[in-house]
Amino acid sequence: MNLASVSKPTLLLDREICRRNIYLLKEKAKQQGVDLRPHFKTHQSGMIGEWFREMGIEKITVSSVGMAQYFSHFGWQDITIAFPVNIREINVINALASKAHLGLLVMDAMTVDELGKKTNHPISLWIKIDVGTHRTGLGFQNIQAIDEILHRIDNYSHLHFSGFLAHAGHSYQKRSQAEVQVVYDESLRILLNLKSQYLSSYPYIKVSLGDTPGASMVEDFGVVDELRPGNYVFYDLMQEEIGACRFDDIAVAMACPVVAVHPERNQWVIYGGAIHFSKDFLLAGDGKKIFGRMVDSTESGWSTENVSSNPVLVSLSQEHGIVQCNKETFSLCKPGDLSLWLPVHSCLTADAIGSYSTTSGEAVDHYRGHLYE
Amino acid sequence: MNLASVSKPTLLLDREICRRNIYLLKEKAKQQGVDLRPHFKTHQSGMIGEWFREMGIEKITVSSVGMAQYFSHFGWQDITIAFPVNIREINVINALASKAHLGLLVMDAMTVDELGKKTNHPISLWIKIDVGTHRTGLGFQNIQAIDEILHRIDNYSHLHFSGFLAHAGHSYQKRSQAEVQVVYDESLRILLNLKSQYLSSYPYIKVSLGDTPGASMVEDFGVVDELRPGNYVFYDLMQEEIGACRFDDIAVAMACPVVAVHPERNQWVIYGGAIHFSKDFLLAGDGKKIFGRMVDSTESGWSTENVSSNPVLVSLSQEHGIVQCNKETFSLCKPGDLSLWLPVHSCLTADAIGSYSTTSGEAVDHYRGHLYE
Repeated sequence: MNLASVSKPTLLLDREICRRNIYLLKEKAKQQGVDLRPHFKTHQSGMIGEWFREMGIEKITVSSVGMAQYFSHFGWQDITIAFPVNIREINVINALASKAHLGLLVMDAMTVDELGKKTNHPISLWIKIDVGTHRTGLGFQNIQAIDEILHRIDNYSHLHFSGFLAHAGHSYQKRSQAEVQVVYDESLRILLNLKSQYLSSYPYIKVSLGDTPGASMVEDFGVVDELRPGNYVFYDLMQEEIGACRFDDIAVAMACPVVAVHPERNQWVIYGGAIHFSKDFLLAGDGKKIFGRMVDSTESGWSTENVSSNPVLVSLSQEHGIVQCNKETFSLCKPGDLSLWLPVHSCLTADAIGSYSTTSGEAVDHYRGHLYE
Repeated sequence: MNLASVSKPTLLLDREICRRNIYLLKEKAKQQGVDLRPHFKTHQSGMIGEWFREMGIEKITVSSVGMAQYFSHFGWQDITIAFPVNIREINVINALASKAHLGLLVMDAMTVDELGKKTNHPISLWIKIDVGTHRTGLGFQNIQAIDEILHRIDNYSHLHFSGFLAHAGHSYQKRSQAEVQVVYDESLRILLNLKSQYLSSYPYIKVSLGDTPGASMVEDFGVVDELRPGNYVFYDLMQEEIGACRFDDIAVAMACPVVAVHPERNQWVIYGGAIHFSKDFLLAGDGKKIFGRMVDSTESGWSTENVSSNPVLVSLSQEHGIVQCNKETFSLCKPGDLSLWLPVHSCLTADAIGSYSTTSGEAVDHYRGHLYE
């Protein structure tokens, strides 16, 4: 890999690993007859989106109205915005609905009425169910609220009830296949139970689940209709810790110039900080924070062979990163060298830096880098 | 304040508070005969930079070569890049040095040689001293390394030794005027001690210190030559906790639509997440995280009158924020309303969102929003 021209923090993308991640989950879903609607909030890239399309993906998930507009520009026509409807953006939503098949998430009757009155293109509505994450969604036992929402949806001919949707975000707290399986099974059971209650009135409704640990670690998806994982396109150190991937499956690494070394404490300072990595961290066994793990540059990209013994990124300020080495690893870099880092949370890292370069030097777009056009 | 057109997370800037912050520290430094070289990494804005210029500021600090280029476009001609020299950017540095009086930080002789050989415009070099933060800088007792650096600088006629510079970043761990005073005094003592050792050989050298707690909380700056605080332009909840400002001095607040409410746990969900606020947090007395505190919208901006009893932003994911209310405050907002939030760390929040709107609706630039042009 020719890194000679890299002079500042640069998020490197290994196209082969990324395409393999896309392919493997597509195949897994296909073999089980499950619709895959990948979440594009992790990569936020038109070019990476094309790799999904080449492999037969036609439906996508995004996390904001602006991101839906971005992918609409790239020709995507079946988009679920997996975020509670923000009625302050209702005009943009309506304009989008004229161009794409739009799926939205609702949790209250008032929002349905707003959509009903202020949009005039067909829109699909999912009722968001809280399956245990307690971030958003209606409790599954809240039949009164669900009935009220359905009653309102039925009032507007352009609004269609798609079914029940959940994000099992609490799978991120799990650390084994068995634990993630329990979260998946319980989440699916809740959604299927609701589906069975409403199937006679709404015979086409579906259930949709989405999280990368579940999609990666559960072998048998059961009778779920649709899955919406996103992070698996890149994976990251958090997914590795959960057990959803191996280090070798992580498709992005941040290249950072080393700008100072401190032999008295076996530390390096790198150009690469919170504004490049974001500040999500893992906790090491000793309670210390980990903001990244170093990999070794190779001719074609990087190798994770020494990732467990390599230096660790232990602190981030705005532009600086502090790297803890030991006596053996301290001499691996000197000022002016590039160091390569697997990120803790690839979604936030990609958003923070707002662009990619493939390991062969090709620029890859990110929505973030186009926000201000 | 007319917030009717705000439909997504928007960083509001109170021009009057911001200008007052700029003015008060400018006056304080002027009265004590201290040069002020404000750090522009907090606001990163050409327009806000003009407010400094109107008040007589001519010298600035930035944290990256790219940021120096940005402010060079706005006519700034005396710029210190308060980050270790990244020799991979040496060509851009040399081009900048042809247009502006550039100050750089060095900590090793090799970097001085690189600068000496690969640049050909006058450049000022500061030796970065570690006064206790242990992020970067030479130990003050490391006279051998300092002498070696000076020996190399003297080899190149276009390189000039400016003096000793430090960032007392450990002041951020302090929580009282007395504690911050101790950090300031000790830092200044270290720098002055070095200055006195080298003054006979380099009669024009200066000492430069920079951190907002010190600049805000220390009454008598002593015989420091230059101060480089940055955060004070906005302040934030972290500075309030340190004691460097009051809530009323915080010049930015994030406007976020409320998109869902959960009466069963007295929570709201806002459109406003890690990609808008960044993930820095404070710890409350009960050990819970605080990512923002709510203020009340007023005709001219916002009021902090109820900030201590208002709801608290307790969790952030990529686009979502979770707000904890109590029974009394839960009814303050419903879906579709806007909520206003003081950020924990204004530098990272401004960088994450990449733009501002003044409370009167004027758009304000941020370097981040121009990175991809």
